Amino acid sequence: MNAKKITGPSSGFPELLPELRRVEQQWLDTIRQSFEAYGFASIETAAVEEVATITAKGEDVDKEIYGLRRLREAAQDMQPSSLGLHFDLTVPLARYVSQHYNELNFPFKRYQIQKVWRGERPQEGRYREFTQCDIDVVDNNELALHFDAEMPRIVLKIFDRLGIDDLVTHINNRKIIQGYYLGLGITEPMPVIRCVDKLDKIGPDGVRQTLQTQLQMSDDIIDKCLQLAAIKTADSSFAAQVEGLGIHNEVLDAGIRELRFVMDSLANLRSGSVLANLAIARGLDYYTGTVFEGKFTTYPEFPTIFAGGRYDNLLGSYFNRKVPGVGISIGLTRMLLKLYKEGRIHPAEQCPTDVLLIHTPESSYAALVARAEALRDNGINVEIYHDPGKKTGQQIQYANRKGIRYALFTNTGSDEIKDLVSGTQLPIDIQAWQPDRTSSYQTRIVPSARQAGGKPAD
Amino acid sequence: MNAKKITGPSSGFPELLPELRRVEQQWLDTIRQSFEAYGFASIETAAVEEVATITAKGEDVDKEIYGLRRLREAAQDMQPSSLGLHFDLTVPLARYVSQHYNELNFPFKRYQIQKVWRGERPQEGRYREFTQCDIDVVDNNELALHFDAEMPRIVLKIFDRLGIDDLVTHINNRKIIQGYYLGLGITEPMPVIRCVDKLDKIGPDGVRQTLQTQLQMSDDIIDKCLQLAAIKTADSSFAAQVEGLGIHNEVLDAGIRELRFVMDSLANLRSGSVLANLAIARGLDYYTGTVFEGKFTTYPEFPTIFAGGRYDNLLGSYFNRKVPGVGISIGLTRMLLKLYKEGRIHPAEQCPTDVLLIHTPESSYAALVARAEALRDNGINVEIYHDPGKKTGQQIQYANRKGIRYALFTNTGSDEIKDLVSGTQLPIDIQAWQPDRTSSYQTRIVPSARQAGGKPAD
Repeated sequence: MNAKKITGPSSGFPELLPELRRVEQQWLDTIRQSFEAYGFASIETAAVEEVATITAKGEDVDKEIYGLRRLREAAQDMQPSSLGLHFDLTVPLARYVSQHYNELNFPFKRYQIQKVWRGERPQEGRYREFTQCDIDVVDNNELALHFDAEMPRIVLKIFDRLGIDDLVTHINNRKIIQGYYLGLGITEPMPVIRCVDKLDKIGPDGVRQTLQTQLQMSDDIIDKCLQLAAIKTADSSFAAQVEGLGIHNEVLDAGIRELRFVMDSLANLRSGSVLANLAIARGLDYYTGTVFEGKFTTYPEFPTIFAGGRYDNLLGSYFNRKVPGVGISIGLTRMLLKLYKEGRIHPAEQCPTDVLLIHTPESSYAALVARAEALRDNGINVEIYHDPGKKTGQQIQYANRKGIRYALFTNTGSDEIKDLVSGTQLPIDIQAWQPDRTSSYQTRIVPSARQAGGKPAD
Repeated sequence: MNAKKITGPSSGFPELLPELRRVEQQWLDTIRQSFEAYGFASIETAAVEEVATITAKGEDVDKEIYGLRRLREAAQDMQPSSLGLHFDLTVPLARYVSQHYNELNFPFKRYQIQKVWRGERPQEGRYREFTQCDIDVVDNNELALHFDAEMPRIVLKIFDRLGIDDLVTHINNRKIIQGYYLGLGITEPMPVIRCVDKLDKIGPDGVRQTLQTQLQMSDDIIDKCLQLAAIKTADSSFAAQVEGLGIHNEVLDAGIRELRFVMDSLANLRSGSVLANLAIARGLDYYTGTVFEGKFTTYPEFPTIFAGGRYDNLLGSYFNRKVPGVGISIGLTRMLLKLYKEGRIHPAEQCPTDVLLIHTPESSYAALVARAEALRDNGINVEIYHDPGKKTGQQIQYANRKGIRYALFTNTGSDEIKDLVSGTQLPIDIQAWQPDRTSSYQTRIVPSARQAGGKPAD
């Protein structure tokens, strides 16, 4: 037999062992149920799009896009790829809505949980294949601000359910930055926005230097920009601080009104979970209003975990209608692998089996199958041990090795179940019995305080 | 604003509207729960593999494989792709097991539900991107026959739960064909197997002609081959019929023993759901024993819905160990789109929302949010209507348009729920209320008899 060396995909294509995959599945279920709890419908779009479609709105995204060609065709000619893998789920949404416009109900609330691909240099938190969980609402002509306010509420609900307590949603509104800059006499705000957006990474001195050298801005205008970016409040008090800077502009006023509405709507959320942060802009050109960014407080250097915002013109630019949207995208893979690496995820066992059915001299195969099916009909996960010739001890050993908690002994008169954790063995009614799943076999998520060396949470 | 024409991916990349996607999700949940009910653990492998890995076991598969290159790199040089999209989930399993061998428990029972890509010519039932649902068991050195018998039981369980009553599992064993051919003096059985496997498509005369012209076989040997392929029994009586053909060979005997074990184990399944069919071989070279093939009885011309078998040497060929496996793969996309096209799937509404919360002059936003969160904590899907300025009638209209069944009116003293189907409006306890989800809002699957013009099933 010729043994070929078999290798996995290159770095940047993470794969999970079964025990961590179970955690990912539980998280995906929680995320999906939460999205549906707010009335969002699931769609999936093809992973493969026309290159012309995915590059239409991308600034500099083409370097990250994987083009596709059938191997045989690629070997025959040197044509460029006309197909590529999607790198996000927002551009595909725009294409999907434009294609199915007449078949959808508006406001169209959709969620989409799929893999995306980016040919980035792999490093911590950056992968070439990863799962994104997106929600977006799009509507005709006008989109209610209600939806901008709902987005942070939904993600917070998800993280509370997952037991992740150290993610903060930073919220801003592009109109505040744009209006303020226009009020300062900056006629082309976009390059300034992109530069100030790097404040977190390069600091105020770095921003100042870039604005001076690359955009020839004066020191007092730069001061004014940095003053706005320094405003961070847990509630609507940002508004008074902005007004205190003495700049007046209609777009600015609209932005303040919108962000105030969002912050007021979120007033009853867990303290510290949302922050009006006037430095946040998000790099993408298509955002027009509210912008969101979610970061770990425990790992301030780690990239954004979720992000999104309001895009009033993105979809319209694809099909000549006004279809404003707002959405948020959670980077599931990045979040999961970070918390696992930090030792905060303790997965359960590799296999989902609750009960192993044991072959005994008294049990027939048909009797075991009947027991197994009865248990499965009650939602219990069951394996029949695969080799009737093995001794009971060897069968139990298999259960222990796989982390199967219960063993069922089927005798002529009665069924007895053995709890391999406690060691107790008791007769059961096969139609009524349920396993205890609340025990040590569950996945645990460690709160940030305990992990960071602080006081353990309750 | 420049409106660009935006197009979807080429044909062969199917996309679902939200209502059909909900059906797909329900099916995926059922499939997943059924796999777990039999103790299978979930894994996902990267969609992207080394081209060398995915082509290692493929006969003629390279014409269907999509190679990947970053657009920018592809524009700079003409190197061939070293990465490609997986075209099935069995080869990735082999690679995964060889990579993680020391971290897995054996017998390793895994399921894998993922998209795969094949650059085929699109036609009915053949897509370029589609979802496969695979289960496989692999073990060291020996793999119990128990698992071969379990596979058809699991898929039948799934189809019963989905309400699909016209799929039959055809079962054979490669050793029967190989041993029988060896007994006939055919020293190289594989080309004959591949030809006889086309019996369904080209008929006995077509098979005869091919065997005559391409393999120069004599008429009486061809007769013998066709006699074996004609045997089809609902139970183990195939064995007597094979023995009646008077061919003797050790490999043949082993095959009969194995298939008899499988058929006997399945004796208590729904009548007509499994068939020992000695014509079935499956094209792939790597099968060594049991083979499965699932077809619609109602659409005999339609391609196979699920298929699989025993492969004793596939994994071993990757890493110099004996790691036999057996598995089955369900073509979810093909099955879903066929039944939808045939009018047998009647999806529910586009959105998952149970209740719409109505703005009234007496209701505050905070009160609505509190009610919504209380309902969501009880697993109910809730939207707050997005525009407080709209009249009640317009809000109800939105619910009707989206197929939301209930509207909640929050007044100072009480909460009242209106069933928009029956028209009744009653006060409720918000902590205890549950929606009726068993009504017309559910997805329905039509049994084959009704669809085929027969007597409607109950």
